[in-house]
Amino acid sequence: MSGVMETVTAFAPATVSNVACGFDVLGFALESPGDEVTARFAPAGVFIDDIVGDSGRLPRDPNRNTASVAAQALLVRLGERRGVALAIRKGLPLSSGLGGSAASAVASVVAVAALVGACLPLDVLMACAFEGERLAAGSAHGDNIAPALYGGLVLVRQPDPPDVIRLPVPAGLTAVVVHPALEIETAGARALLGDTVPLSDAIREWANLGAFVDALHRGDFAQMARALEDSIAEPRRARLVPGFAAIKRAALDAGALGCSLSGSGPSLFALCRDAVIAQRVAAAMSAAVRASIGGEPRTIISVIAPEGARVVSACAS
Amino acid sequence: MSGVMETVTAFAPATVSNVACGFDVLGFALESPGDEVTARFAPAGVFIDDIVGDSGRLPRDPNRNTASVAAQALLVRLGERRGVALAIRKGLPLSSGLGGSAASAVASVVAVAALVGACLPLDVLMACAFEGERLAAGSAHGDNIAPALYGGLVLVRQPDPPDVIRLPVPAGLTAVVVHPALEIETAGARALLGDTVPLSDAIREWANLGAFVDALHRGDFAQMARALEDSIAEPRRARLVPGFAAIKRAALDAGALGCSLSGSGPSLFALCRDAVIAQRVAAAMSAAVRASIGGEPRTIISVIAPEGARVVSACAS
Repeated sequence: MSGVMETVTAFAPATVSNVACGFDVLGFALESPGDEVTARFAPAGVFIDDIVGDSGRLPRDPNRNTASVAAQALLVRLGERRGVALAIRKGLPLSSGLGGSAASAVASVVAVAALVGACLPLDVLMACAFEGERLAAGSAHGDNIAPALYGGLVLVRQPDPPDVIRLPVPAGLTAVVVHPALEIETAGARALLGDTVPLSDAIREWANLGAFVDALHRGDFAQMARALEDSIAEPRRARLVPGFAAIKRAALDAGALGCSLSGSGPSLFALCRDAVIAQRVAAAMSAAVRASIGGEPRTIISVIAPEGARVVSACAS
Repeated sequence: MSGVMETVTAFAPATVSNVACGFDVLGFALESPGDEVTARFAPAGVFIDDIVGDSGRLPRDPNRNTASVAAQALLVRLGERRGVALAIRKGLPLSSGLGGSAASAVASVVAVAALVGACLPLDVLMACAFEGERLAAGSAHGDNIAPALYGGLVLVRQPDPPDVIRLPVPAGLTAVVVHPALEIETAGARALLGDTVPLSDAIREWANLGAFVDALHRGDFAQMARALEDSIAEPRRARLVPGFAAIKRAALDAGALGCSLSGSGPSLFALCRDAVIAQRVAAAMSAAVRASIGGEPRTIISVIAPEGARVVSACAS
C-alpha cells in the first residue's frame, strides 16, 4: 500500500452507547455488524456516489449526510484541495440505537484519511467525525463515535475537543444485543428527557458510573451488576419499546449482569460475564421480544471488540 | 481490653466530601483533626454527659444530636437494653464543610459498639451513623460518614443500605484544606442547588467522575486534574465564599491538581500530587484567603488517611 491509493474502503462497527449508567458518555464497540465507506478522489468537494443498504432513505445531499460532512471536515482540517467521492454500504439498520450515523461518519474519516495518505491521531479523526454527526444530525454526543473509532469500551470525558478514555474490559465480558423490528428516532427519544433532570436521579447516575468504572478495573462482576442501573434515560424512554420490562427481566433472569436500552433504542443490550451465559441471555431476550413485540429480532452476541474502525481494502493506482 | 469496658473513647476524622466531581457520593478522610466521643454505660436510653469544643452551640437534647441519635440506632439494632451516656469532644469547627456532624456520629457508633462488646461489619455501623445524621440533621448523604468510618477515598454508590467502595489512592496524593473564618449552614447551601439540574451539567459531572475513578486506578495525575471539575455544586455555591475564584486560582497556579469547596464550604480543598507541592499550595491558598476574606485561615495538609474511625482508649472496670 505504498503507492497512491485509488480507492480505500474502511469499516466501522456498531456500538452500544449510554450503557445504562453512562448516559451520553459511555459506549462500546461490537465486532459486527458495521458500515463500510469507500472513498475515491474527485474534483474539489465531497460527493456521494452511492448508498446501499438504506432502502433509499438516507440523504444523498452531501451537506446532510454524516459521512460526507465528516469527510468535508477532515479535508478542511488537512487543507486538502482535492475532493472525494464516497460510496456507503450500510450494514447497520437505520434508527436501531446501534450508532449507525456514527459508524458511517467514522468509516468515512478513516477511509478518507487513508486515501489522502494522512497519518492522524485518533482524536483528530474523532473531532471530524463528531462534526459530521453534529452538523448532519443536529446533535452529537461522541458516545457512539468514540467506540466506533477507538474500539473497546470508552468513556468520553469530553467530546470536543476529544478526551476519550479507554476503560479496561474484564476477560469474558460479552455483550448481547437484540434489535426488535421497530425504529426510534433519536431526536424524539431525546425530547422525552427534557433539559433538566431531578438532582437525585443525576446523583444516582454518577454514583453508578463511578462504581461501574471501578468494577471494570477490578473485574468485579457483582459490583458491575449493581452499577448497571440507569436513572436517567431508561425510566423516560423504556415505554418506546413495548414489553421493555419483560425483555429486561428475561435477560436478568437468564443471568445477565445488566440490561438496558442501547442508545435511544429500540435495541436492547445486555452484558454478561461469559459467552455461555450470553447465549442463554440472547435466547431469553429473543423469546421475550417475540412474545411482546412479535417478529424475529436480530440478535448479536459479541465480545467488546478491542479494535474499532479500520481500513479493510485499498486499491493502488 | 478483655474485661468489661467502663468507658470507650473513639476518634473519627474530618472528611472532605463532594471532591469536585462527585457531589454527594465521593469523600476522603484526613488524618486530623477529628471528633472524639467517650461512651459509658447508663440507665436505659442515650444521654449526653458533656460536649466540649462547640462553645455551647450543639444540641444537648439526645434526640437532636447526631452522636446520640446514631448511638440510639445502634442500640436498637443490637437489641441492647442497657443505655449509654456520651461525652463529645469537638475537634472540628462547626459548619466548616469538614463533616463535623458525620465525625461525631461515626465516633459515637464506634465507641458504643466497642463499649457493648459488639463486633459489627462497617456497613452496619455506617447504617446507624447515617440514621443519626439523617434524623438529627434532616438529611444525610453518606459522603462524609463513609470516609470518616472506612478511611481512605470512598465512593458511596448507595448510602442506605450502604454500598461503599474504597477507591485506590495513588502514592503521593496529598490534600490541602483551608478553613476561612466563615460558617456556612449545610441546609442553606443545599437550597441553592434546587431540586433539578440541567441535564448537560449532570452529564458533565458523571463524565468527570468516571474519568476521576479511572485516573485513580491508573495513577494518572494529568487525567485526574482534568476530571476535578464540578459542574453541579461549585457554580451554584462558590459565591458563598468571598474570593473563591482567587483562592482556587492560587491553588491551581501553585500546582494543585484541582481545587473546590469541601462539602458545602466554606472550607476549600485542593489535591496535590506530592507533599512538596502541597506545602506550596497551602501557602498560596492561605495568602489568598487573607487577601480576600481576611483573618488567618486554619490550614491542614494531610495524606488521604487510610484509616478511618477507631477506638483510641478504653478503660476496663
